[in-house]
Amino acid sequence: MMIELRIDPITQDIVVFSEDRLKRPISSHSSKEIENMQNDNKDCPFCRKNEAYCEKYTYKIEDKNGWLVKSVYNKFPIINQQSDYIYGRHEVMVDTYRHSGSFYDMSILEYKNLFRMYKNRYIDFINDNKIEYISIFKNFKREAGASLDHPHSQIISLSFIPPEIKKEIIIAQKYYEENNKCLYKKLIEDEIKLDERVVHNSDMFLIIIPYATKYTGEIRIIFKQKIDFHEIDESHIKELAIIFKKLFKSINDENGCISFNLYIHGYPNNIKCKEYFNTHIHIIPRKYNVGGFELSTGAYVSSIKPENLAKKLKF
Amino acid sequence: MMIELRIDPITQDIVVFSEDRLKRPISSHSSKEIENMQNDNKDCPFCRKNEAYCEKYTYKIEDKNGWLVKSVYNKFPIINQQSDYIYGRHEVMVDTYRHSGSFYDMSILEYKNLFRMYKNRYIDFINDNKIEYISIFKNFKREAGASLDHPHSQIISLSFIPPEIKKEIIIAQKYYEENNKCLYKKLIEDEIKLDERVVHNSDMFLIIIPYATKYTGEIRIIFKQKIDFHEIDESHIKELAIIFKKLFKSINDENGCISFNLYIHGYPNNIKCKEYFNTHIHIIPRKYNVGGFELSTGAYVSSIKPENLAKKLKF
Repeated sequence: MMIELRIDPITQDIVVFSEDRLKRPISSHSSKEIENMQNDNKDCPFCRKNEAYCEKYTYKIEDKNGWLVKSVYNKFPIINQQSDYIYGRHEVMVDTYRHSGSFYDMSILEYKNLFRMYKNRYIDFINDNKIEYISIFKNFKREAGASLDHPHSQIISLSFIPPEIKKEIIIAQKYYEENNKCLYKKLIEDEIKLDERVVHNSDMFLIIIPYATKYTGEIRIIFKQKIDFHEIDESHIKELAIIFKKLFKSINDENGCISFNLYIHGYPNNIKCKEYFNTHIHIIPRKYNVGGFELSTGAYVSSIKPENLAKKLKF
Repeated sequence: MMIELRIDPITQDIVVFSEDRLKRPISSHSSKEIENMQNDNKDCPFCRKNEAYCEKYTYKIEDKNGWLVKSVYNKFPIINQQSDYIYGRHEVMVDTYRHSGSFYDMSILEYKNLFRMYKNRYIDFINDNKIEYISIFKNFKREAGASLDHPHSQIISLSFIPPEIKKEIIIAQKYYEENNKCLYKKLIEDEIKLDERVVHNSDMFLIIIPYATKYTGEIRIIFKQKIDFHEIDESHIKELAIIFKKLFKSINDENGCISFNLYIHGYPNNIKCKEYFNTHIHIIPRKYNVGGFELSTGAYVSSIKPENLAKKLKF
């Protein structure tokens, strides 16, 4: 499979060309139909009984009725191990065996198994000295870029530090050098004190609607401790499961079962930045569309005040 | 009207909060319905006979039957002249009096009038020493961010240089310092010589599918001369009208009447960069959707090779 990396000379944006991805199967159902679907969908490669579609799994958790979550090779990877200068692995993690399951209706146990799988795959991927960064992300529904209906997440390892991570780290490093204090520590303290944008403040995680974000309606979950995602233990997993269950109930109550992207921003493998950077999760609802002003300027317009949204989602 | 500028501490993205924009009227028709619509739509603020909706115009071109194009104050501006630190003007330019007109069916004369209007408004906006940058852009159809069906463009002046422009200028400046040659001049020469990504090469403009772009399917029009958009004369306007007419016929033949954004990247007011920067236009089809990988990493995945698209659109 040919994968080619190119950089735009005018904007220096990085583009990965992967023509084979056009061959990806695409589920043909509307969002409404999915919600009414059975859990064993005969055409879905991620449903039980259809293991023939993706035979090899790299991880699974089972109970007496079968597998509950599993991770499989991505048949249409963004990246592969063929080329040295764009090297990495790409797996699809099936969130739950239930075809019609979603973050809006998963049980605490299902969430726990999901995060256990995220952690397991992260640890496995990190064990490769060519890897600079590991990205875990999720696309829910077509508008958010999902090509298959069955709820799933993705993990990808990269031989370069992605631009967005590099940007966040440079900002945090500069703040640390200038203020002799961690930007994230300061942010956590200030937001809790102000309490205008806090959705939930648990022992180990702070959920806020950011003061400013280019993505209208974004929710950010900041790890209070200086740990990478793969360093979470069962106590973190339990707390994450509980707050995710409550957070998505809150989103559902306010906005319904909307499409979203989720991604974890953890530490790069070879940059020591625990003093000034904290692992965090971005959740981006795909309800709002940017226009020419945003594309042209790189500045963003929003009509929704974070303080108002935080009030509505607070739990 | 309250307009507030905020910067995300974690990503340093710039966000303009303008809550009043929620009150914008939104046309309620599907794209299909618009195409079959009459030219005098009784509910459309941009149609002839409905001048009462936006009484004051700042510019118009007329013939014996009435106005052909006109520019009016944006009733829901992104920016206004109330605040010093986010100061500027915002107008809506009605592309044609025809409600169902569009870039896909406008005549050469309609295109000429459109570009004459762009130029007139640009010159008027530039005449203010608080202004650092003027942005002309266009959203076509709902997916591209348009709230009203009647085809229109927008012009906005800003008291700061937008991040995307700053980025492009820094890249070009660095290239110039390192190579003692203009990046845009080099790109024009190389692309014409290679002739694999050229859609059309006219006297004063080069239309290419960029070697790499974060927006799948992007078309870029590069001005061969070192002139800002407001410095175009009737000969440029004539050539632009002809190549736009042909380009949008080509897009329509290949992809149908798809939604798109268009934006002009010209020179900032107070930075001398003509030696190393050229005015150019980005046209972004809104057919492709980014997912969590792109949002998370700031790197982009594409399945369409620019060389193949260029071959299809070539005229």
